[in-house]
Amino acid sequence: MAILEDPIKGMPTALNYVDGEWVESKGEHIDVVNPTTHEPIGRVGISTKEEIDDAVKSAQEAFPDWRRTPAVSRARYLFRLAQLLEENFEELSRVQTQEHGKTIDESRGETRRGIENVEVACGIPTMMMGDSSEDIASGIDEYLIRVPLGTFGIIGPYNFPFMIPLWSAPYAVATGNTVVVKPSSEVPFSQTKITELVEEAGFPPGVWNVVHGGRTVVGGMLEHPDIEGITFVGSTPVMQDVIYPGCGKTGKRCIAQGGAANIITIMPDCNVKATIPGLLTSFFGNAGQRCLAGQTLVIVDDKGDFYKDFVEKLSVAAKSIVIGYGLNESVQMGPVRDAKKKENILKYIEIGIHEGATLTVDGRKAEKIVGDYPDTCFLGPTVMENVSRDMRIVREEIFGPTMGIIRVKDLDTAIEICNESPYHNGHAIFTQNGAYARKFQYDVISGNVGINIGIVAPMAFYPFSGMRGSFMGILHTQGKEAVRFFTESKVCIHRWL
Amino acid sequence: MAILEDPIKGMPTALNYVDGEWVESKGEHIDVVNPTTHEPIGRVGISTKEEIDDAVKSAQEAFPDWRRTPAVSRARYLFRLAQLLEENFEELSRVQTQEHGKTIDESRGETRRGIENVEVACGIPTMMMGDSSEDIASGIDEYLIRVPLGTFGIIGPYNFPFMIPLWSAPYAVATGNTVVVKPSSEVPFSQTKITELVEEAGFPPGVWNVVHGGRTVVGGMLEHPDIEGITFVGSTPVMQDVIYPGCGKTGKRCIAQGGAANIITIMPDCNVKATIPGLLTSFFGNAGQRCLAGQTLVIVDDKGDFYKDFVEKLSVAAKSIVIGYGLNESVQMGPVRDAKKKENILKYIEIGIHEGATLTVDGRKAEKIVGDYPDTCFLGPTVMENVSRDMRIVREEIFGPTMGIIRVKDLDTAIEICNESPYHNGHAIFTQNGAYARKFQYDVISGNVGINIGIVAPMAFYPFSGMRGSFMGILHTQGKEAVRFFTESKVCIHRWL
Amino acid sequence: MAILEDPIKGMPTALNYVDGEWVESKGEHIDVVNPTTHEPIGRVGISTKEEIDDAVKSAQEAFPDWRRTPAVSRARYLFRLAQLLEENFEELSRVQTQEHGKTIDESRGETRRGIENVEVACGIPTMMMGDSSEDIASGIDEYLIRVPLGTFGIIGPYNFPFMIPLWSAPYAVATGNTVVVKPSSEVPFSQTKITELVEEAGFPPGVWNVVHGGRTVVGGMLEHPDIEGITFVGSTPVMQDVIYPGCGKTGKRCIAQGGAANIITIMPDCNVKATIPGLLTSFFGNAGQRCLAGQTLVIVDDKGDFYKDFVEKLSVAAKSIVIGYGLNESVQMGPVRDAKKKENILKYIEIGIHEGATLTVDGRKAEKIVGDYPDTCFLGPTVMENVSRDMRIVREEIFGPTMGIIRVKDLDTAIEICNESPYHNGHAIFTQNGAYARKFQYDVISGNVGINIGIVAPMAFYPFSGMRGSFMGILHTQGKEAVRFFTESKVCIHRWL
Amino acid sequence: MAILEDPIKGMPTALNYVDGEWVESKGEHIDVVNPTTHEPIGRVGISTKEEIDDAVKSAQEAFPDWRRTPAVSRARYLFRLAQLLEENFEELSRVQTQEHGKTIDESRGETRRGIENVEVACGIPTMMMGDSSEDIASGIDEYLIRVPLGTFGIIGPYNFPFMIPLWSAPYAVATGNTVVVKPSSEVPFSQTKITELVEEAGFPPGVWNVVHGGRTVVGGMLEHPDIEGITFVGSTPVMQDVIYPGCGKTGKRCIAQGGAANIITIMPDCNVKATIPGLLTSFFGNAGQRCLAGQTLVIVDDKGDFYKDFVEKLSVAAKSIVIGYGLNESVQMGPVRDAKKKENILKYIEIGIHEGATLTVDGRKAEKIVGDYPDTCFLGPTVMENVSRDMRIVREEIFGPTMGIIRVKDLDTAIEICNESPYHNGHAIFTQNGAYARKFQYDVISGNVGINIGIVAPMAFYPFSGMRGSFMGILHTQGKEAVRFFTESKVCIHRWL
Repeated sequence: MAILEDPIKGMPTALNYVDGEWVESKGEHIDVVNPTTHEPIGRVGISTKEEIDDAVKSAQEAFPDWRRTPAVSRARYLFRLAQLLEENFEELSRVQTQEHGKTIDESRGETRRGIENVEVACGIPTMMMGDSSEDIASGIDEYLIRVPLGTFGIIGPYNFPFMIPLWSAPYAVATGNTVVVKPSSEVPFSQTKITELVEEAGFPPGVWNVVHGGRTVVGGMLEHPDIEGITFVGSTPVMQDVIYPGCGKTGKRCIAQGGAANIITIMPDCNVKATIPGLLTSFFGNAGQRCLAGQTLVIVDDKGDFYKDFVEKLSVAAKSIVIGYGLNESVQMGPVRDAKKKENILKYIEIGIHEGATLTVDGRKAEKIVGDYPDTCFLGPTVMENVSRDMRIVREEIFGPTMGIIRVKDLDTAIEICNESPYHNGHAIFTQNGAYARKFQYDVISGNVGINIGIVAPMAFYPFSGMRGSFMGILHTQGKEAVRFFTESKVCIHRWL
Repeated sequence: MAILEDPIKGMPTALNYVDGEWVESKGEHIDVVNPTTHEPIGRVGISTKEEIDDAVKSAQEAFPDWRRTPAVSRARYLFRLAQLLEENFEELSRVQTQEHGKTIDESRGETRRGIENVEVACGIPTMMMGDSSEDIASGIDEYLIRVPLGTFGIIGPYNFPFMIPLWSAPYAVATGNTVVVKPSSEVPFSQTKITELVEEAGFPPGVWNVVHGGRTVVGGMLEHPDIEGITFVGSTPVMQDVIYPGCGKTGKRCIAQGGAANIITIMPDCNVKATIPGLLTSFFGNAGQRCLAGQTLVIVDDKGDFYKDFVEKLSVAAKSIVIGYGLNESVQMGPVRDAKKKENILKYIEIGIHEGATLTVDGRKAEKIVGDYPDTCFLGPTVMENVSRDMRIVREEIFGPTMGIIRVKDLDTAIEICNESPYHNGHAIFTQNGAYARKFQYDVISGNVGINIGIVAPMAFYPFSGMRGSFMGILHTQGKEAVRFFTESKVCIHRWL
Repeated sequence: MAILEDPIKGMPTALNYVDGEWVESKGEHIDVVNPTTHEPIGRVGISTKEEIDDAVKSAQEAFPDWRRTPAVSRARYLFRLAQLLEENFEELSRVQTQEHGKTIDESRGETRRGIENVEVACGIPTMMMGDSSEDIASGIDEYLIRVPLGTFGIIGPYNFPFMIPLWSAPYAVATGNTVVVKPSSEVPFSQTKITELVEEAGFPPGVWNVVHGGRTVVGGMLEHPDIEGITFVGSTPVMQDVIYPGCGKTGKRCIAQGGAANIITIMPDCNVKATIPGLLTSFFGNAGQRCLAGQTLVIVDDKGDFYKDFVEKLSVAAKSIVIGYGLNESVQMGPVRDAKKKENILKYIEIGIHEGATLTVDGRKAEKIVGDYPDTCFLGPTVMENVSRDMRIVREEIFGPTMGIIRVKDLDTAIEICNESPYHNGHAIFTQNGAYARKFQYDVISGNVGINIGIVAPMAFYPFSGMRGSFMGILHTQGKEAVRFFTESKVCIHRWL
Repeated sequence: MAILEDPIKGMPTALNYVDGEWVESKGEHIDVVNPTTHEPIGRVGISTKEEIDDAVKSAQEAFPDWRRTPAVSRARYLFRLAQLLEENFEELSRVQTQEHGKTIDESRGETRRGIENVEVACGIPTMMMGDSSEDIASGIDEYLIRVPLGTFGIIGPYNFPFMIPLWSAPYAVATGNTVVVKPSSEVPFSQTKITELVEEAGFPPGVWNVVHGGRTVVGGMLEHPDIEGITFVGSTPVMQDVIYPGCGKTGKRCIAQGGAANIITIMPDCNVKATIPGLLTSFFGNAGQRCLAGQTLVIVDDKGDFYKDFVEKLSVAAKSIVIGYGLNESVQMGPVRDAKKKENILKYIEIGIHEGATLTVDGRKAEKIVGDYPDTCFLGPTVMENVSRDMRIVREEIFGPTMGIIRVKDLDTAIEICNESPYHNGHAIFTQNGAYARKFQYDVISGNVGINIGIVAPMAFYPFSGMRGSFMGILHTQGKEAVRFFTESKVCIHRWL
């Protein structure tokens, strides 16, 4: 195995963590490959049905005592975890860059947002309060108490290996449940690192388990009668065909977050200078592998002059993005996660061309790569013009550093294009005009709506919303809604005779 | 058709109400039979797939304007509806008694609770508020806005023909959605009456639709891509096998409330005099057809003296219950809904006897019937002793006026019996002791917990909770949770450049 | 006494309502004068110390039973009251016009907003919920219950005789308190009419009392040991010198809303056509006697062209306002409340002139008066230019149909002018630009902030906020905050041994 | 100055902390005396009017930037502070024991509760959320934003030198305000220690200031126009005569918590074994210097046998309490704060005797003192029988380790005695019976109500309530209410033209 300059410390194999013990999976092991160097940086086991069952059993057994631990005491574990995450901030960020490929600053952003969720969950004594009413009838009182349910499964995606399980897990354990986390097997080390700190924070064995793997683990969770519910972030097909119906079939509660193909509307009155950097981050940040990334840019310009000038500036800026190993502080964009994903993105660019789009900036072969790395997973920013609203590159999720641009005559048309998309995660508008912004916000179908914000990521104390093809369920991860999701109400009616 | 002394006025056929028009179903029509007189009192159509599709279409078309109607204006329709329901209080109650069989006082209670839900939904301007945060980062604000989703399906059961759809529909329309209500085809007139008042209150066409029928309508709702979600109250098998997986498969949100087999624990320190009437209402009220009815009585008495005395008093009281036509104010118990349901209850009594239970009060043939009615649907209160915790009459839902009694040595055992039940809707304890009550409340698995309350029905401003075999979903009907269920969050992030 | 074409029915003397009885005050009686016709339309007694004491005693005696009435039952009285107010909508509005002078449409707006507060208070079962926490330590639960306090005094002003006491009274009684309302003795009939409907709604005697009068009644409330708190809307000097220190001295809780001198900022990018009507309503509506009325207009225009054009259009529009008896549907502005108030406004116009302002529209003598009425209380709209930020007509409250215009070079200056005012009730900005609006909203000191809204009146489910010279206290009237104000928390900690 | 075995480190003089600098007061300096050793352990300055003015100025100047710091960033300072407090847990506790006299375990409890308040305030991003409503009318949205006000004064008492300012200060700064804390000059070191950690946590200069002193500082705060509000915990006379009217006069918002004379009711069915230790802690813990301490014990026993037995057991237990220097882990009760306070307590014992009470346990001279300390401030537990409800030792606050016992015939009488007290901070009942407990909870006037809890201290996430003579104001310290107290609502109405 090649030697990394900055290896992931002491964890060449991502172990499972079950019942407070680090356990090597008996399943097949696969390499974890750094997409920049394209060299393996460790290994991970694809856990078996028995291993997920063991983890659920451990979680089940830990539940009664953990539920009986007062919320204020459970919170104290989270305070310690937040502090440990803070102390390991840089190392945690480096691991993300190494296993996923994103730039170190993108990783730092991810680390920060992950920690913020732990911080919000520290507020559990306040957030878990129920209701009370004296005298619903003479002499009868009614109290609503929030109680945890048992064990939850948390399934993470590859694009935010650190942050996304933290949208759920801190709230699940804060409310008194126990969890089994399944990270993406492509990027298992971020969660492994978190789990080391979970252990250091002193959580009782069985409260917070991690099982690495793939479909077997997901299937094992879905079918397990002792899993009360699942939170999932991943692709829309898996959400629609596997997770949500799987939970329906087995009576589980579910939060399922799927894909996206977000559309950003530019009004000609926007602040161009401030807008362009926002768009670069939105479309090309995290190499476009973000469920809140922009994919299609709709420019409202009846005549075309503004359009022309704007796209020119945008293209110049896109071309100047520095690509390379994300650990290099000056690099602005890393590789996509792996060669297969790169192939899929390239396929979509070809589809776009085939459907009539033209390449204004051709990123099919990455240029401006800093450093001597194989280009296996690298792509440059791609900007396509002559895109029309019914093209597959608009309607389907590409999940790469591409931007398709449509010019339309008015805001109504722009909103129609947003609303006819199957995905409704995070549409945004750039304008200086309050009336345009309000009309957009009111009429657009979108779980998260940005006004001059390219990546509409809700803070940890707001629900990570989503609509239609981007979401299935009722409640959302993060904040107050996560607390509600992970609890059940016990309505107690007291009459003393 | 026989002439009723007090017929349901002007509505011999329960019509569908679609797009503001009363429409006769083209489907097969069946008789609605008064279970007391066992004579038909009207007819109802079993609507076709096309008819449910028409209703959804009408609801869809009404949605955009209704959503754009400010909440404070939508509330005003509900204020009018509440007032009209109040003005028609007695007639609405009589209809319930006629089509379902319950006593007029039970109907009045049901009417009252139904109206309370409309009243709570009148508070929608306050209840629908979202959140706001200034400066989530410098110069950036975040707002959460609650928006309606579209059209919802509301499926009601036969046992509370008036009240149960009102656990959902007022909140659905208050939040700006449109609804299609499917009442039980056995008892279609209560909802028809409500809908007449909905029309009188002036709701715009298409906002509140009613389609009578059975499985075809349910199936049509489940499969319809324009139904955003479903609330269902009915049997556990339908909940588990049809509704919840059906919603899972088609990506709908769902509140599904199923059956129950509630267990009531008696501690020897209870206030006997006040407890016994509470138990009679719990086990025999509404002829036991209540998902919060008691089915099993667990008496904690190590020695047996208290037990003996208590059961004797209870039996005397049970035997004295006056049975007959519920419109007669002196009657205390009406018939069960129909002969088939009576057969099923009788079957369970036989099962109990076969398993070793003994009949202390034998209600298989109703006595004390006031008036000259066929006994087709009548049963008397049945009390069974020598019941043990693993008998089918404890574990399965009977849904009739039966009480199985188990004697146990301590509270721990009583709680174990509650918790090993597949159902967890409304277990209760009768005691004067705070420590017993708190232990019971804390340890019992039950969505609703009663302390000296036999029917643990949450007020309209509390969620109608339920756990395990009695409930599938996350949020509940009634109050704040219903408002959350019928809305989605739109997280809006504002940055002005 | 002159005969009105449309007299206030059956209530030539505004009686006190104490303990469910209509009582004529033994105090001096004064005429209630219609400011349009300048003829008396009735009489009102200036109640004595004994009479306010009697009312408090009645309220005290009614309290224990009313507190014991479940919230859901108390709400039902409010539902009835809301309905009765709706049924008497037109008559209630006419009374306001007759006793206060405002136009019938302004009265209808006031009636509507008053009813909305009763409607919001109908949600009391939800709004009054407390909190609950299981296991604050092992085996110990904590519940917060909201309880009413006793008797509250509600003191109303003359400018919204109908609406303003309804910002408080419905919430006070909904929460289980009892009230004594003191309307302005200048306009006693609106509250008298409401009280007739309170009686018709069936509130128990002593729950809702009305005592007419002046300082004696206010003083009697302040000093009374059985008054738990006071809500007051009136002038800032009375708020600062009498009410708030009076409550401080006697340990009462207090919401005190004072005067205002609101400043409206116009940006040159505003939608002129839509802005001008908004300004007319803001400055001249209700004859300027509104604590949310605009008093100073700050136009941001570095060069002056926009300013010139805008003021010209505004002046033309101001001059065209039709003045007369508000019962005439075509009238757009009525008189001010009385001759003394007119004198005060005229005094301020003279002060303005003396300080250097020029009269662009001179309303000192009302023109365009429709009908044959004495001009005793009439004024026309006055527009003054060449106003500077330190003039008394900017800094002090005028409370009449006047507009002073300041031209400034930028938004920062406009905000400075707002913030140096002693009053901060409802400043507003008119612009199409989101960044201007956000900057204004963020930087301005103002309890209520309008973006393209001239009268920033919070809906009944929002607190009627205010800052600095416009408000003293913590919580506000209306909605959730009123519920909190009228209740106290009882924190109950349960441990069962 | 005598050398302590365990001196307060590095802080022989408690300095002021103003604008991020440690400043020695120019005022007179007085000794801080350890009440156990009766030797000085340091000195503290009695700050001047200029010094409090300087602190307010510093706080005022720090406000604009601090308000502009996002809540999520402000929270991070509090997370650091919580961690630092945790790391210094033992030292902080020792300081309390040294300057106040309480036992080290009592100090640890105080430290824990103080930290919990910092922890709760860490949840500020969630807790500070405002409301939002789309379409209050067509096209108009309403947002409520919570904003800080400026500078607050926080005045602490001597009995909980560490904890009580933390009921307010963390919330004040979390919400974006700046504070000036005035600790009791008798016990200045606990707050000084906290402030060292505030500095270490990196709060910007001027955000959190401390000014030691007495009446001059209090007066300076009350009169200062730039202090927006005050939280005070201290004696009822100061609350009623100085603080609340002072705030009323100068227009400040105020939370004022005063004295108490709590009454604990014993029902003959209580669990005697578990009740007695609870009572010892309640009456004699913290040497009785606790606003939630029991002062009067009401035993319900019609016949007297239970009474006799219970009091005997209680007296034996009271006599066995070990007294001494609180740093000794085996000591159960320390001295009272100073000789003057001891004199006052002795005076009340004499008054009791004079009024007819008899001394069952005479603690006037402390026995069982462990170690060789002057008895200057020591008292033993005193138990008085033959007490009647109108005695001064029942009605007035003693604030020492005394228990007066009244025997009554029924619960109604016990509740009457509670309710006729001028104080209503924390009455409690000991019983096993749910009906007794509910009756007590419902009928008693008390901000905090205990069921089998002797010291009814609300958790940090609940408001520290109080009623009548124990409290003046509306909102309370701690948790959500503190957040509301330290913010004002800005209601923003957006209409885009």
